Amino acid sequence: MSLNTVDSLVSDIKLSIKRSAIPVPIGISNRHLHLSRDDFKTLFGRDAEPTFLRQLVQPGFFVCHERVSLEGPRGVVENVRLIGPYRPRTQIEISVSDAMALGINSPVRDSGALDGSPGIKIKGPASQASQASQASQTSTVRLSSGVILSKRHIHFNPDEARLFEMKDGTEVRVRCGSGGDRELVFERVLCRVSDKFKLEFHLDIEEANAAMVKTKDIAYIVGE
Amino acid sequence: MSLNTVDSLVSDIKLSIKRSAIPVPIGISNRHLHLSRDDFKTLFGRDAEPTFLRQLVQPGFFVCHERVSLEGPRGVVENVRLIGPYRPRTQIEISVSDAMALGINSPVRDSGALDGSPGIKIKGPASQASQASQASQTSTVRLSSGVILSKRHIHFNPDEARLFEMKDGTEVRVRCGSGGDRELVFERVLCRVSDKFKLEFHLDIEEANAAMVKTKDIAYIVGE
Repeated sequence: MSLNTVDSLVSDIKLSIKRSAIPVPIGISNRHLHLSRDDFKTLFGRDAEPTFLRQLVQPGFFVCHERVSLEGPRGVVENVRLIGPYRPRTQIEISVSDAMALGINSPVRDSGALDGSPGIKIKGPASQASQASQASQTSTVRLSSGVILSKRHIHFNPDEARLFEMKDGTEVRVRCGSGGDRELVFERVLCRVSDKFKLEFHLDIEEANAAMVKTKDIAYIVGE
Repeated sequence: MSLNTVDSLVSDIKLSIKRSAIPVPIGISNRHLHLSRDDFKTLFGRDAEPTFLRQLVQPGFFVCHERVSLEGPRGVVENVRLIGPYRPRTQIEISVSDAMALGINSPVRDSGALDGSPGIKIKGPASQASQASQASQTSTVRLSSGVILSKRHIHFNPDEARLFEMKDGTEVRVRCGSGGDRELVFERVLCRVSDKFKLEFHLDIEEANAAMVKTKDIAYIVGE
């Protein structure tokens, strides 16, 4: 083993120890969707706008009052909440159980990487236009792609990334539920750095239940 | 570091390497229940017996045709399947999501460790006795305890335990979904050795979905 290799090993270990001492708050996502402006207008009416229910940890993102149903080849999932603001392209994030209930085969994807993912039928309430013509009619968007399982990831703003010595795109190991009945280590968690972000480790509901953690619980980065 | 310490470290590493090369098949449990004879008779009628649907991997255990509903303070979970044969004490194994839907707070427990766990109302079809008196009546068992989240565990028969050099009661780390999008390492997985068992790593549906694994996929023991 050369002295360079030893130096590199020691600095890896130091970085690992440093990172593993900084708490990362957990944020749990239940099934939800982001809508394009056009799809929103189709589902909720041309004069409607998303209405604010609750601020999320990520700056500018909020839970809306609006809900939709998803109709797949096998079944229906109701009360899927809208997250605002609008996005250029509609994106739906569900769990493995939801995918089974709907009868679709969604891949694990980073947010925005939607090509080749399955579509779905989205049902909204009667739009204002359709209410005028037919009282009980609901509105429908037929999506040809956009339904994914979210790849688990950590959001960092640039200051937080500096604290962790973390580059955008790095994949890390994350320990959750330390000392609890369902402690586990998630492998290859994607780190995303942006000045629009705030430190938060995003899991879906099944991943959170497997580790027995709740929103605002603490996770630790334990290696790359 | 004494020579004894070095010897002990080396033998730990050798054991770890040996174990991590032996595949452990995964078995996924959806919500289910085991019934005592008395509770079965109350729910399905005094002349009824559990009817065989499908053999499970563990010898002697089988899925039954019989299904029940669970009624908690918040909601109902339907079509919970019965696993035979009878047990001395009724035990219900659900997921964290089921517990939330029912409105109960079930602990993570080893099979059989039911004291202090919450109860539930179990609804069965009309029993033969009640069918005679009142056609539409369903039968009910009010359980005062017995609803748990199953602690993840590996079953070994004594030959398999010898192969892994594993003692009953050891807790190990288990890697699942190797190379996949949701690879993870479960900590403190309980190892249970009995001549009634067969090698199998038991997870519930949320743990399986978090690791993106299916029944008969392979897991590896990667340490203690």
